[in-house]
Amino acid sequence: MPTPSPGGIFAAVLTPLNADYSVNHAALVDHCHWLLANGCHGLAVLGTTGEANSFSVEERLAIVDALIDGGVPGGALMPGTGCCSIPDTVRLSAHAVENGAAGVLMLPPFYYKGVSDDGLFAAYCEVIERVGDRRLKIFLYHFPQMSATPISYGLIERLLARYPNTIAGMKDSSGDYVNMAGAARRFPGFGVMTGSDQLLSALLADGGIGCITAAANIASNLSARVYANWQSGDTGAMMDAQQKLSAVWAALRGVPLSAGLKEIIAGHRNDQTWRTVRPPLVQLDGAQSADLAERLAATGHQLPPVN
Amino acid sequence: MPTPSPGGIFAAVLTPLNADYSVNHAALVDHCHWLLANGCHGLAVLGTTGEANSFSVEERLAIVDALIDGGVPGGALMPGTGCCSIPDTVRLSAHAVENGAAGVLMLPPFYYKGVSDDGLFAAYCEVIERVGDRRLKIFLYHFPQMSATPISYGLIERLLARYPNTIAGMKDSSGDYVNMAGAARRFPGFGVMTGSDQLLSALLADGGIGCITAAANIASNLSARVYANWQSGDTGAMMDAQQKLSAVWAALRGVPLSAGLKEIIAGHRNDQTWRTVRPPLVQLDGAQSADLAERLAATGHQLPPVN
Repeated sequence: MPTPSPGGIFAAVLTPLNADYSVNHAALVDHCHWLLANGCHGLAVLGTTGEANSFSVEERLAIVDALIDGGVPGGALMPGTGCCSIPDTVRLSAHAVENGAAGVLMLPPFYYKGVSDDGLFAAYCEVIERVGDRRLKIFLYHFPQMSATPISYGLIERLLARYPNTIAGMKDSSGDYVNMAGAARRFPGFGVMTGSDQLLSALLADGGIGCITAAANIASNLSARVYANWQSGDTGAMMDAQQKLSAVWAALRGVPLSAGLKEIIAGHRNDQTWRTVRPPLVQLDGAQSADLAERLAATGHQLPPVN
Repeated sequence: MPTPSPGGIFAAVLTPLNADYSVNHAALVDHCHWLLANGCHGLAVLGTTGEANSFSVEERLAIVDALIDGGVPGGALMPGTGCCSIPDTVRLSAHAVENGAAGVLMLPPFYYKGVSDDGLFAAYCEVIERVGDRRLKIFLYHFPQMSATPISYGLIERLLARYPNTIAGMKDSSGDYVNMAGAARRFPGFGVMTGSDQLLSALLADGGIGCITAAANIASNLSARVYANWQSGDTGAMMDAQQKLSAVWAALRGVPLSAGLKEIIAGHRNDQTWRTVRPPLVQLDGAQSADLAERLAATGHQLPPVN
């Protein structure tokens, strides 16, 4: 049985870029401190929202280094480390462990489609053996809409049986509540975190341990209120916060998430460079941007002030 | 109008591995010389069949270096260089150009799904500008079943308009004959190569310039006969060779290609290490292997002898 994970509210952290598409480390460090000061328990940097796969391994290592150098606690980090190639995944995961990361969020190898659970099991085993560090805590990343490589219950079961102290949980970004709640029920001690803000309170009640979401980049104060009120047992206050959070989530529906959230932060910080996304993503156009701003304003949500 | 590309028969070259999943450079060099001696005009190393995305950038660079060091002419190479991240694609493409490669086979960035043609156009443009070398010749890699990121005619048109001397052609692995023949007709001078052996003679007649196929790892002698007889105008001999080639292709249907072809080469060379594939791919089991051997034997196809 794995040790229960700490859980809580993790932002799927955006990666701010300069106009030439290079990473703006200073802006990223600022953003991370702001998130930690406004409700986030942890930072899932370098996930899908953070455009991780658009960066080289060297750029990804440099991002984690910059955060540590910038005073972000290693223990608050859950970097995305799952690549198509085992050597890349090993290198990024070992580096996260060396920096004291709370865990790593690990996509399965995602180029080949229709691969077997035998193949995915072999890939995860090879990574774990090569990292060879008992401090490694893996959160499996289930996001079939993007990776086209689902994490099945059968795979989780086999991995937990072989590596009970390493397989810490799963981020479920499928939006399929039955799948995430079912995993929390089926595998006690396996930390299921939802990728869907609107399902946070429901999953906490069903045994999940928290969330890793894109909207936490702009609304971690709300998700933190859901979580705190769940912990203290104030269900009325929890549901009030959940409703506000779900309204923010609804305002983002249909918007490309990384570009849309960067647009919102750019407006909040009055820094147009924040709008930059690396191709193949594209910035919102003027109409999309205005529409998003209007829908967000209609929710009444206020982003916490920046220093 | 781009300069017509040379075309011909390119193998989507398998990458032999050692038992520990490291690349067996010596076996790869041997295999490439054998392919060139038996009908291949060129070598599309590090494509889907070659498990490219299962290797780190460093491993991919080392593979090309090993081939050059092993006496394989740079001009025979068309390495796969398209990664999810622009810096990786740039590094691999520049290295291929420096080694005199005939071209590069470039997947679009393939992690994000549902990306726009604007985003793919921006990604290809950024790569081309950063490589900044007039010797760069890109074959776009259209393989929607695996990349989930199709190359549309609209994207080809925009890229050809901006970079007529760099956008050399496309490998179409979709199996969709209407798409590949349509591209050959629509974009004169744009070299369309099919990824489907059984469509080789048809596409040559419709303006395509050749093929890049997995089956060429075991049947390049047949595909070369299709091509040579097409060039000399002996359509009877061409169709005879096409029928034999299509029979080999049919024997491979339903078999995981990299694992199946490695199984065949392992038997032909009496070298069981050749069976190794890197996870998430898996080796064939005994029954699959026996079934494949039986179906291939039924075609009467003989692999050329190895030294």
